[in-house]
Amino acid sequence: MTTAPLSRNEAKELTRRRLLRAALRILDEEGEAGLTTVKVSRAAGIAQSSFYVHFRDKQDLLKSLWHEGGGRLLRATHQARSLSIEAPTDRERFRDAFRIPLESMCRHPELFRISRRVRHDPGSPLAEFAREAEKISRDLLVEDLIASGFTAGTEQERRRVEMIADCLGALTERMAIGHLEGRYPDLEEALDVIIAFSRGYLSLLPRENRA
Amino acid sequence: MTTAPLSRNEAKELTRRRLLRAALRILDEEGEAGLTTVKVSRAAGIAQSSFYVHFRDKQDLLKSLWHEGGGRLLRATHQARSLSIEAPTDRERFRDAFRIPLESMCRHPELFRISRRVRHDPGSPLAEFAREAEKISRDLLVEDLIASGFTAGTEQERRRVEMIADCLGALTERMAIGHLEGRYPDLEEALDVIIAFSRGYLSLLPRENRA
Repeated sequence: MTTAPLSRNEAKELTRRRLLRAALRILDEEGEAGLTTVKVSRAAGIAQSSFYVHFRDKQDLLKSLWHEGGGRLLRATHQARSLSIEAPTDRERFRDAFRIPLESMCRHPELFRISRRVRHDPGSPLAEFAREAEKISRDLLVEDLIASGFTAGTEQERRRVEMIADCLGALTERMAIGHLEGRYPDLEEALDVIIAFSRGYLSLLPRENRA
Repeated sequence: MTTAPLSRNEAKELTRRRLLRAALRILDEEGEAGLTTVKVSRAAGIAQSSFYVHFRDKQDLLKSLWHEGGGRLLRATHQARSLSIEAPTDRERFRDAFRIPLESMCRHPELFRISRRVRHDPGSPLAEFAREAEKISRDLLVEDLIASGFTAGTEQERRRVEMIADCLGALTERMAIGHLEGRYPDLEEALDVIIAFSRGYLSLLPRENRA
């Protein structure tokens, strides 16, 4: 069996992905302090000078990690929510829609920690990016909430749906923090509480749209 | 009418309070960048060298601001919750118990912003203090939730009540952030959403304790 040789672009993309995987592993194992361009390049098996073909600097590398990880998370969460909207009485699907983002935040603790830190630090070069990412995630949830029956015809209704999305994000994040701090070892227990709170916002659904 | 002259300790406490008030005013008006010991001392009408009689440094001053502001907030919130627990069907008292912490976070935006930033920044000398303050606030809410009928006899029950307290804190904080960012101009609308979510956790109350 022969395989066609990689094109220049394919080879470049392969190296880029190898760098991202190496960076994520280092973050998981050693935390932010371990994340240097020297270490990442060595772990990916490339020369340090080549690092800069792919990323401007460490901040740019972090942005790419979030961009890819966040993109995957958003797609998975959106899909779980769509499945739940299709079958509004299916309790397991409803649970999945909350479990997927919660588990995802806990999967790479250090990446999650850094994202929270930079979002609150106006002096960080990543602050704007982190806030933008939060907005994209909230906007997508707003769309899913509208698909599930919330009305957003007026400005006030739209704002209310945005608040609900914001609150759901805050609950998930707070439970993830508690889990990572070791206070809530069982994610399913945390999920129970998120879902209990969430049943409350369903009372804001227009009556004719309730399951 | 004559007034007794101030004792040495009273005079010292008066100056300390004057410094704290000046610092809070500067934070509100100019943000963190304006908070220098020179400016605070001048605004309080004392010599800069005297500043250090009262506070070790700027961090120590910030700690005192939180300590006093946080203490006031906790007492006011605890009182509002107690009044609501006494009259569980009184909707206005229930609302007050959520409104008071929300309004308080919004009253001094810069102080609130700094507290969030340092909590997420392990490198900050105030990180430990901010996390401790968050824990005190959560523990007090846990006690109030138990007073309102939640059981915490087993470890798992106790953890659940802690999660509920944590979630309530997260909702309030997130709505305060949205308000301060200008997205939710009307705090009463934000309060409606917090309360809608909160009605959800009430489903976790043991049935015999529901209002």
